[in-house]
Amino acid sequence: MELQHLPRKLSAPVAAAARRLELRLEELGRVSDERGRLTRTFLSPAMERANQLVGGWMRGAGMTVREDGVGNLIGRTPAKARTFVVGSHLDTVRDAGRFDGALGVLLGIAAVEALGPELAAWPLGLEVVGFSEEEGVRFSSAYLGSKGYAGLLTAGDLRRTDAEGVTVAEAIAERGPLLALQDRSGRRFRSAPPGRELLGYLEVHIEQGPVLEAAGRPLGVVTAIAGQTRGRAEFTGRAGHAGTTPMRLRRDALAGAAEWIGAVEAYAAARSPLVATVGTVGVAPGAANVIPGTATLTLDLRHPRDAARVRALAALLARGGEIARRRGLAFRWEKTQDDPAVACDPRLRRLLADAAAPWSAPALASGAGHDAVIVSRLAPVAMLFVRSRGGLSHHPDEYTSPRDIACALQATCAFLRQLAAR
Amino acid sequence: MELQHLPRKLSAPVAAAARRLELRLEELGRVSDERGRLTRTFLSPAMERANQLVGGWMRGAGMTVREDGVGNLIGRTPAKARTFVVGSHLDTVRDAGRFDGALGVLLGIAAVEALGPELAAWPLGLEVVGFSEEEGVRFSSAYLGSKGYAGLLTAGDLRRTDAEGVTVAEAIAERGPLLALQDRSGRRFRSAPPGRELLGYLEVHIEQGPVLEAAGRPLGVVTAIAGQTRGRAEFTGRAGHAGTTPMRLRRDALAGAAEWIGAVEAYAAARSPLVATVGTVGVAPGAANVIPGTATLTLDLRHPRDAARVRALAALLARGGEIARRRGLAFRWEKTQDDPAVACDPRLRRLLADAAAPWSAPALASGAGHDAVIVSRLAPVAMLFVRSRGGLSHHPDEYTSPRDIACALQATCAFLRQLAAR
Repeated sequence: MELQHLPRKLSAPVAAAARRLELRLEELGRVSDERGRLTRTFLSPAMERANQLVGGWMRGAGMTVREDGVGNLIGRTPAKARTFVVGSHLDTVRDAGRFDGALGVLLGIAAVEALGPELAAWPLGLEVVGFSEEEGVRFSSAYLGSKGYAGLLTAGDLRRTDAEGVTVAEAIAERGPLLALQDRSGRRFRSAPPGRELLGYLEVHIEQGPVLEAAGRPLGVVTAIAGQTRGRAEFTGRAGHAGTTPMRLRRDALAGAAEWIGAVEAYAAARSPLVATVGTVGVAPGAANVIPGTATLTLDLRHPRDAARVRALAALLARGGEIARRRGLAFRWEKTQDDPAVACDPRLRRLLADAAAPWSAPALASGAGHDAVIVSRLAPVAMLFVRSRGGLSHHPDEYTSPRDIACALQATCAFLRQLAAR
Repeated sequence: MELQHLPRKLSAPVAAAARRLELRLEELGRVSDERGRLTRTFLSPAMERANQLVGGWMRGAGMTVREDGVGNLIGRTPAKARTFVVGSHLDTVRDAGRFDGALGVLLGIAAVEALGPELAAWPLGLEVVGFSEEEGVRFSSAYLGSKGYAGLLTAGDLRRTDAEGVTVAEAIAERGPLLALQDRSGRRFRSAPPGRELLGYLEVHIEQGPVLEAAGRPLGVVTAIAGQTRGRAEFTGRAGHAGTTPMRLRRDALAGAAEWIGAVEAYAAARSPLVATVGTVGVAPGAANVIPGTATLTLDLRHPRDAARVRALAALLARGGEIARRRGLAFRWEKTQDDPAVACDPRLRRLLADAAAPWSAPALASGAGHDAVIVSRLAPVAMLFVRSRGGLSHHPDEYTSPRDIACALQATCAFLRQLAAR
């Protein structure tokens, strides 16, 4: 099945760039707003230091470097008529691992280094972007960096406040006049290359899940970023004395909720790649000797195709209603989030699959959101996943091996070469 | 099926005493430690006022009245060689109804009133007791009143502290020298009649459950007070990203717990009068987008026969282990409470069933604990349940109709008469 025309063996420039990349991941992993653990949030002091550090590596690779108005770090190879962007984010969750986000930025720089002099002859230039915000930690709102890059920050985004009551607008304005959301001629702030120039976007990211590890593959080609529905379900019955109420006279809200949790799990298990999660549950009154009168749950549903997700939600809500009716309970549902799926561009995806073919990279959907969601509104996007040990992310034990990272770099270089050759 | 030799129609003295009892329930229901809601806790000011009020009614019924060292209110008809005790408790939960406990005390007084002059000729005297503590509110420990009455207060009981750090021993000592746990000759404090004199104990109590209402019967004869096992179960799996972890690679602790909740419910439903309740559940990490790594539940199991309860616990723990193994989870169980069942005395139960036969009173177990649990260690006990509207108790809407209370009074008088005639 493997395409033999692409080498699996690492080229010497790739191997050298991959070794540097490893050292840089460690160095960048020490740039933190908190002592003893890794935390970098939107426009924080550690983010400024990270941009200086990573900007230095960009310059060393021969790129011109700037920061845009919302703190995105942008490095460019010499300008051509068309630009292809490689990037990810440099912010982190609290107590993070050092791979999530950072890998995709440093891998873009390493690709420029590995490709080296041949880039000069290409008909396209490369832009490597380190987005300033993806995790949503400081303002409880994700993608502030890529939204700013894409000119998609809304007035609502700008009004959001952090724990100190500082708004996004104020945090941006502190950085200086360049950072105004609109320029002097009234145009919306956007730092991405203009549409006609912008060829596409590649994001290399750790998988944050166990699929590649279970399949024994270092790389995966993302088909789509799953759409997501989130909401709150509530079963209401009748609280009662745990000792004096016979089983047949109960209207136990938790027993109904438990039946539904089982139904949710069984429905999704039979319909991969659908994933459905009940991540929280609470009961009232909530005492060991009282039959639960109310049970409240969250449901998180994701699928790379919107129609399948919509169908799943309808089926699970119908099931909740049916369970409630049979048990004399009431069932309520309140949707709190509804994001459509984002498909990766079929042409870029095919090129990436060819480039990753030496490692038999499987196609898989991304269940988590990424900056590619936002950039997809400007240009075709592609994503390459790299195996995560234990499927772990958002945790200091997050780990992706040097060997897997080198494979990702080799595949990225091959992908960019094929793109340039067209 | 009804025994026709006992009248269902109320006698005039019973009807009159029942009307007074109704008014007294209302008056006593206004004696509270809290404004606007009914709360009376162990040795509180409201409990002192309640004892004065109820003691006055006892005296009016021709009884001699005293308070013992732990605040129990004790009224006696003129002494005979043998004594039969009728009682319940005068303390309440917070925001209580006016029937739970109070009914059994006031019904004892009403029985003395309704039986009137005929008592003089009986070979037995009656003692009516209002226990000072049954609900466990102030010291998070139930039965302090009946334990004191029975001479069963332990050093551990006395060391318990309330929210202000006052111990049970200090609260008792404040009441005066009479209240010492041991008298001057070193004997343990006990105010119940000595064993050779003590014939038995009857407690009339609202059902606190929906069985009699569902059966359309005003009265029920208690077979036993259920034994109870309580504990904490924990399923542990692996937390994970709700978007990136396929269903088949999950070890979802809550999904396992939900399956067990269903198994607990089904097991008990098929084995009435077993009742099994999962009253609380919590998960960690506990976020909508994180697969639960741990789910913690309480289980409350009750059955009037200890062997059936022990068997149920073993079966449900085995089931928990089986569910956990199949799902790659760990299952832990920690028992926090284990109280054996208390059987009502067969002879007293038969007499009570005869006395309640005009109302076709069904036999039923008590799922809740009562002072009879403690008194059973001194003497044979019997319990009569009176229908609760909606099965409700421990709530201001708790309600038992005047008609049902009058039936209970009539049955109690018949029971005591038959007892005296033997």
